[in-house]
Amino acid sequence: MVAENLTRTLLARHRREGALEPGEDVTLAVDQVLIEDATGSMTCMQFEALDAERVMVDPTVLYVDHNVLQIDERNMAEHHYLRSFCRRYGVRYSPAGNGISHYVHLERFARPGGLLVGADSHSTTAGAVGMLAVGAGGLEVAVAMAGREFDLACPRVVRVELTGALAEWVEAKDVILELLRRHGVRGGAGAVFEFTGEGVAGLSVTQRATICNMITETGATGAVFPGDERVREWLGAQRREQDWTALTAECGATYDAEEHIDLARLEPLIAVPQSPGDVVPVREVSGTPVVQVCVGSSVNSSYEDLATVAAVLAGRTVHPDVALTVTPGSRQILDTIVRGEVYRGLATAGARMLEPVCGPCIGIGQAPTRGQASVRTFNRNFPGRSGTAEDRVYLCSPSTAAATALTGRITDPRDLGAFPTLPAAPDTDPTVVEGLIAEPLPAEEARRVEIVRGPSLVPPPVPEPPPAELDGRVVIVVGDDVSTGDMAPDGAIGMSVWSDVEACAGYMFRRLDPRFPDRAREWAARGIPGIIVGGHNYGQGSSREQAALAPLHLGIRVVAAASFARIHRRNLIVQGIVPLVLARDGDRERASVGDRWRIEGLADAVRSGVEELTAEVERGEPIPLRLLLSHEERNVLAAGGLLRRARDGDRPPP
Amino acid sequence: MVAENLTRTLLARHRREGALEPGEDVTLAVDQVLIEDATGSMTCMQFEALDAERVMVDPTVLYVDHNVLQIDERNMAEHHYLRSFCRRYGVRYSPAGNGISHYVHLERFARPGGLLVGADSHSTTAGAVGMLAVGAGGLEVAVAMAGREFDLACPRVVRVELTGALAEWVEAKDVILELLRRHGVRGGAGAVFEFTGEGVAGLSVTQRATICNMITETGATGAVFPGDERVREWLGAQRREQDWTALTAECGATYDAEEHIDLARLEPLIAVPQSPGDVVPVREVSGTPVVQVCVGSSVNSSYEDLATVAAVLAGRTVHPDVALTVTPGSRQILDTIVRGEVYRGLATAGARMLEPVCGPCIGIGQAPTRGQASVRTFNRNFPGRSGTAEDRVYLCSPSTAAATALTGRITDPRDLGAFPTLPAAPDTDPTVVEGLIAEPLPAEEARRVEIVRGPSLVPPPVPEPPPAELDGRVVIVVGDDVSTGDMAPDGAIGMSVWSDVEACAGYMFRRLDPRFPDRAREWAARGIPGIIVGGHNYGQGSSREQAALAPLHLGIRVVAAASFARIHRRNLIVQGIVPLVLARDGDRERASVGDRWRIEGLADAVRSGVEELTAEVERGEPIPLRLLLSHEERNVLAAGGLLRRARDGDRPPP
Repeated sequence: MVAENLTRTLLARHRREGALEPGEDVTLAVDQVLIEDATGSMTCMQFEALDAERVMVDPTVLYVDHNVLQIDERNMAEHHYLRSFCRRYGVRYSPAGNGISHYVHLERFARPGGLLVGADSHSTTAGAVGMLAVGAGGLEVAVAMAGREFDLACPRVVRVELTGALAEWVEAKDVILELLRRHGVRGGAGAVFEFTGEGVAGLSVTQRATICNMITETGATGAVFPGDERVREWLGAQRREQDWTALTAECGATYDAEEHIDLARLEPLIAVPQSPGDVVPVREVSGTPVVQVCVGSSVNSSYEDLATVAAVLAGRTVHPDVALTVTPGSRQILDTIVRGEVYRGLATAGARMLEPVCGPCIGIGQAPTRGQASVRTFNRNFPGRSGTAEDRVYLCSPSTAAATALTGRITDPRDLGAFPTLPAAPDTDPTVVEGLIAEPLPAEEARRVEIVRGPSLVPPPVPEPPPAELDGRVVIVVGDDVSTGDMAPDGAIGMSVWSDVEACAGYMFRRLDPRFPDRAREWAARGIPGIIVGGHNYGQGSSREQAALAPLHLGIRVVAAASFARIHRRNLIVQGIVPLVLARDGDRERASVGDRWRIEGLADAVRSGVEELTAEVERGEPIPLRLLLSHEERNVLAAGGLLRRARDGDRPPP
Repeated sequence: MVAENLTRTLLARHRREGALEPGEDVTLAVDQVLIEDATGSMTCMQFEALDAERVMVDPTVLYVDHNVLQIDERNMAEHHYLRSFCRRYGVRYSPAGNGISHYVHLERFARPGGLLVGADSHSTTAGAVGMLAVGAGGLEVAVAMAGREFDLACPRVVRVELTGALAEWVEAKDVILELLRRHGVRGGAGAVFEFTGEGVAGLSVTQRATICNMITETGATGAVFPGDERVREWLGAQRREQDWTALTAECGATYDAEEHIDLARLEPLIAVPQSPGDVVPVREVSGTPVVQVCVGSSVNSSYEDLATVAAVLAGRTVHPDVALTVTPGSRQILDTIVRGEVYRGLATAGARMLEPVCGPCIGIGQAPTRGQASVRTFNRNFPGRSGTAEDRVYLCSPSTAAATALTGRITDPRDLGAFPTLPAAPDTDPTVVEGLIAEPLPAEEARRVEIVRGPSLVPPPVPEPPPAELDGRVVIVVGDDVSTGDMAPDGAIGMSVWSDVEACAGYMFRRLDPRFPDRAREWAARGIPGIIVGGHNYGQGSSREQAALAPLHLGIRVVAAASFARIHRRNLIVQGIVPLVLARDGDRERASVGDRWRIEGLADAVRSGVEELTAEVERGEPIPLRLLLSHEERNVLAAGGLLRRARDGDRPPP
């Protein structure tokens, strides 16, 4: 018998159906579910539509960490809806202020050997403790919550052997930036990155979390570290040592691919605007004037991250041209920095201390000025994600961010001399959130809870099965690496309408073509099905389902793209939109808004598994298309989306 | 010679022209100027229009504390403008994160005997240290910054004799709420409240600041406490003992009116929706379910305020139905609560700890759900100020707020039993903002600074002299106590356009009549001057000048109201809008939108001092009006506003 790597061991433990063959769908049993408020309202409204009595996965935890500025009444109305939903259906509820979902989940719930599905693309973070942790769209998560299994394209497993130890001023963020430098934002597609080697033991759980969090930016399905002694220490500090299991790859395990990082040879790296895949050494852009530095987010707001910034700033003040914000990852981290020297050090250096939420990472506050550099420890710098059109966001480590905050220009932290001594860390006190994450109500009591539903919460549309023949028009043609943030906007203003697909749809592709929503609506009203034509990696980034629901609302039936990002592709399918692959180079470039495409036999192909289709183009050459769907994906599309399929039973379509 | 009270002593010290007769204009020399960012951009743009070389009052301090969420790029663009303005003209600049202007000013600059003019209505706070401190509109402040004196209607002085000591659970907030219970939102008009008696010594400087801050809500010009030992202690803790002067009313001083508060007999009070003047005992509304409790703001975010909340919550957690936010008043207070037990206590009880800014007090975040009670330690609950239409905001003390946060219902804190022991207070460390408030640049260097001006910063319109005869139409009729918040909106969305009068004008009277801006614009385009008809206390609340600039932009030439709030009345005058008093009861009720009013001899009356005017109403009875202006106000109006008057020299109009 072949020695198994850790990823496949985890997959095998949770497998209910399907072969563990890379690319094939495998059906998995889910141990834990993570939801956050931004994607959560759609998740929960769709769960309600499933007519289930109670959430069947425990822990299922809903964290309020995104829409918390409350610039109008809608945010709080959503919180009230979500809290009542949690009470009604047996979900744990973590209100705003407890922290960013991924940090709190790591602290309170993540455990080696488990399988976490999260309605947030950075749910991969929990891979840091030897967990298989993947992001998914809200409806898939809702279905998992209802006790059904979860389908995942079986990943290939890439071994990343770590040797050596990080040099002074080089951090876990530089490890993941190195992987992004190598693979870009598409190279990880279909993979789980599994970390091995003697370098692993030198990385703390939160350093591993930094790497696992941002692995998503490579397009990967996830990342996993072993459940080793460091994980045991972490769980011990969290008073959860009983959750520990020793877990590692079997001796001599094989992988689909292997690579190596010598930690000692890494240098400070930085992703330049406007892609997390555009990574260069910091010294290549050093000297760039900076107006803002933001520390925090689900990738870099651990105690050690903040302590590093405080140590670099110690006894000095932030450069007067720079606004520095610091966001702790959780209430527990906040408590630790308050009890030690870190909080005070940051505040007296001039940092604006924000509460432990996602905040500026998703443009919820701290939008920078147009065209001026903002240096952030975050995970994404997609255009406009900061809340500012034409933003210039750089992504780097806390050390690089702190050095930059001191000098007012992008600075390789090694230029500051010796790495400072970190202040002594107080013991972690995991009791600080005791009583602040609401436990599930007993079933009897839960049944009597009334759901609170404000007018800004509008259940999403439900799709129809695909037409026998599609006779539609191209409504927009977009380029490579378009993110879901271009479909459902980030920022406090845009995200305040995420619970209302119709309102949300008004923002779709605003940055690329402000007239897109009106055009799509108008054509849909005239009975013309809409077609989106895209490039490679269509729908990268966030798992936000609104990016599929908005086009559904706007009458889009098909997206034809060179390739798709994993989560968004699945979101399209579960919401009844057919993802077609452009089979020939150059067809995207030849497509134009208004082109009339006729695709015969669409519904038949979905049902039968025929993979080759052709779009007959009025006044143009036919376009070859490929319809690449798993068996269950065909069932879902044929049924008119996953909600119908799940609600009406897993019957084969008529 | 008559023994002088403290207020008149302060006035006499700063008097340059005019008699100290209540109601008469007196011209005063200004020692200190306070500006904040929300009103600051208009203040600074108008200062620039004065063509002055440098700000002549030191300290003049600009505090960024309002527009700090940065939900889009405009906030930061304003910060950059304001900072460059400060560098260019010799103003101290306190960036976001240092704290709320009034707290920081009290800590770092306020001193007994001085005269502070602030472009913010709560600038009265500094009266706590024996300073004459008044709020004013931005243009008046800009003119004062240019080295000209400041005109003020000489106040009557009301003695408030305090005897006894506050009972357990009763706080300074209840003292000012008692005054609001007695006087409502108009009863303080034209007055400075001067506090005397043996009860004064029992109140700390920050308790006095709470009273002086919110005195504005009575319509008063200000409030003043003596410069006594408590003030010396305060200044000593701030390492500013050299700023202390013993200062008190002369023995046997007389007053225009006198009243008495027995502190020992006060009970917890609360202002109910939607006016700070609607004050009742807490027990009258106890039991009301509450969804939000907010602690902070310029009236109640001192160390003692936050320590009280922490002590009440100690060892318990916030009621699960309540979202509790806590906002410290300044970076110094934040530092103190972090070094002591307070911060940790609040965070572990479940409070959301926000940064030291105005925040929810002006609807910059934390907008509550519609129609549900939000209990706040703030100073205003005008309709919609929270950022939510149809809000239900209550105003109370930190003790009452904390008790309410625990129980989820409005709670008289005395119901909790004995008052808890406050945690030991660490020494104040005033060095924490050292280097974080930028000093003025030397003149030579300052002259070379380039002003940074983003597209969202639009210089305001400049008015014309009044017409010889006004032939206009009533564009809106509003009721009593309309606040400036109904003219230039609070909230993160509305306030983001405060630097652009045209954009701001689109919000004017939105809540009362959404079609008002369009109607006014349309009539103005047809050459019809606009008239606003109002009730009593027209323009209460904030000093925001946009409330006068927006109607100026919309073609309003006259406001005819039963009475005016002090600062807004002056803002109308300096922006060239004529404030006319409705001389006869019932005329407001008889007025309708669209009424055509002809007022003959308007310009002549402004110039000559004629006080009686008549509006001839088409198809209606003539309406008697009074034009009550000081000599200098007539000059200002006749010149076409204060900017022209100041820029073109104090020449009599042609």
